[in-house]
Amino acid sequence: MSLLTVGSVAFDKLETPFGSTDKIVGGAATYITLTASYFATKNNLVGIVGNDFPEEMFETFKKHGINTEGLAKDPSGKTFFWHGKYHQDMNHRDTLDTQLGVFENWDPIIPESYQDTQYLMLGNLVPMIQYQTLKKLKKRPKFVMMDTMNLWMDIMMDDLKMVLKEIDCLTINDSEARQLSGEFSLKKAAKKILQMGPKTLVIKKGEHGALLFQEDKIFFCPALPLEDVFDPTGAGDTFAGGFIGYLAQTDDTSFENLKRAVIYGSAMASFCVEKFGTERMQYLKKEEIVSRVREFLSLSSVEISDSMRYKN
Amino acid sequence: MSLLTVGSVAFDKLETPFGSTDKIVGGAATYITLTASYFATKNNLVGIVGNDFPEEMFETFKKHGINTEGLAKDPSGKTFFWHGKYHQDMNHRDTLDTQLGVFENWDPIIPESYQDTQYLMLGNLVPMIQYQTLKKLKKRPKFVMMDTMNLWMDIMMDDLKMVLKEIDCLTINDSEARQLSGEFSLKKAAKKILQMGPKTLVIKKGEHGALLFQEDKIFFCPALPLEDVFDPTGAGDTFAGGFIGYLAQTDDTSFENLKRAVIYGSAMASFCVEKFGTERMQYLKKEEIVSRVREFLSLSSVEISDSMRYKN
Repeated sequence: MSLLTVGSVAFDKLETPFGSTDKIVGGAATYITLTASYFATKNNLVGIVGNDFPEEMFETFKKHGINTEGLAKDPSGKTFFWHGKYHQDMNHRDTLDTQLGVFENWDPIIPESYQDTQYLMLGNLVPMIQYQTLKKLKKRPKFVMMDTMNLWMDIMMDDLKMVLKEIDCLTINDSEARQLSGEFSLKKAAKKILQMGPKTLVIKKGEHGALLFQEDKIFFCPALPLEDVFDPTGAGDTFAGGFIGYLAQTDDTSFENLKRAVIYGSAMASFCVEKFGTERMQYLKKEEIVSRVREFLSLSSVEISDSMRYKN
Repeated sequence: MSLLTVGSVAFDKLETPFGSTDKIVGGAATYITLTASYFATKNNLVGIVGNDFPEEMFETFKKHGINTEGLAKDPSGKTFFWHGKYHQDMNHRDTLDTQLGVFENWDPIIPESYQDTQYLMLGNLVPMIQYQTLKKLKKRPKFVMMDTMNLWMDIMMDDLKMVLKEIDCLTINDSEARQLSGEFSLKKAAKKILQMGPKTLVIKKGEHGALLFQEDKIFFCPALPLEDVFDPTGAGDTFAGGFIGYLAQTDDTSFENLKRAVIYGSAMASFCVEKFGTERMQYLKKEEIVSRVREFLSLSSVEISDSMRYKN
């Protein structure tokens, strides 16, 4: 099934305890679409870049079968740029610089050839742009998923709540779930968020795994204990790319299949953090994915029969 | 198989965001032995209480089939007392008062009838007392497990390392594992700790579940997402009680069965936090345990076939 990813294509400059990079290509949509390319057969991208964006990256997208007809080039300015530095624990980071560039006045254009989109992934963006993009599709996709962040909850909560009413699935991290719901317990938080619109919620807990909620159903996927987390940038987007890519490939949005999508998303994210930026997501082999998914399954695989004797 | 639990039997005074208690009976060994009583058929206790300990609690132990021959009563002083207050997030707490009482000069005595112990649980204690207790058993038990805490790592690391050489299984929380190993990655931490003596390591991550390590094998058990955590006191000890109780009952220390023991430990701990103190652990029904274990199993149950198509 066709997948459309809308979001930022950007430059990142990263500093982690393990090293630092010059400006490298990043952005939510880059991670999502590259990751989804291992699954989705029709993989469309909508984004915007400036006059400084490398032509080779278009080649990389092409090699991954990604349709970049909707990736606008604006010669009047520069590509969105983010400079961040991670703390020793890798769970916290400081933004050192942000330059919106051509992203600032971006009004996404959906090519006619994208109008048959059945799976839509709205990467983290200004909520109103997410909303307008969705409305630009003549036919509502079968499954609409979005990511967001604390910033929009701080300054554009009403807009954000308007988008939430329109989507099928929200994916956010645990602190964002707490902020959005005002509840500390993630179970209570999920209950409240599921009343805001989305039927399905994924709460990403980083090194502590991911939770999937739908109605009264809960599924938990652990994170693989890793020896080293090299660079966590894009892990959440990579999760989303694996999740929605798997759904688009299998075209099955049952809860059982959403569970599998969480495993695939988690497996893909576990690759992402092994190298700086999108590097790991550019050269994955089928065998690596199969074997990583197996690792995830065996990590929490156990058999218990109900025949246990109890004393009381 | 026979189980011996050695550790503190105490009074706790607790303050949580949900309320507070007067002095109630607590202590590591109390939680462990009460929890293990749902599994182990021969359940022995070694500890010490003072002249203020309620006779009814001996009755409660008895009702649970716990042998209190080794629970010494010292008329010369008071029972160990801890007063703690939990922060809003329930993951942090402050100690407001500690009175060692008769615990201060305690030299545990192992009754002759306990000498056939096959499963030994050394609750969190001064490491040298853990060591001496183990050495007081004429025949080394088949399986020796211990808990410890950051305090002993701060002030008695050498003693602690001496005990570690003697045991089969260590159960500690994530921050303790990081402190003991000097490694931030729990996978690396586990590798180092497994070289210190124990063949098996359980790292408890509270609301984020528990990890079981043995050689190169890893098993992850999630924590059940709960609407309310009422009082986390004793959750780690309750985990240990369910874990070792299950092992003593099944008398099987294979990795497959250790995995099951982690599930039972986690299930028991999820009950513990629902009420103040040991209350919930005193009146559990077999059906409740069976159904909670099923909830744990279904939480991360998923089926994926390897027949997945990939694009590359």
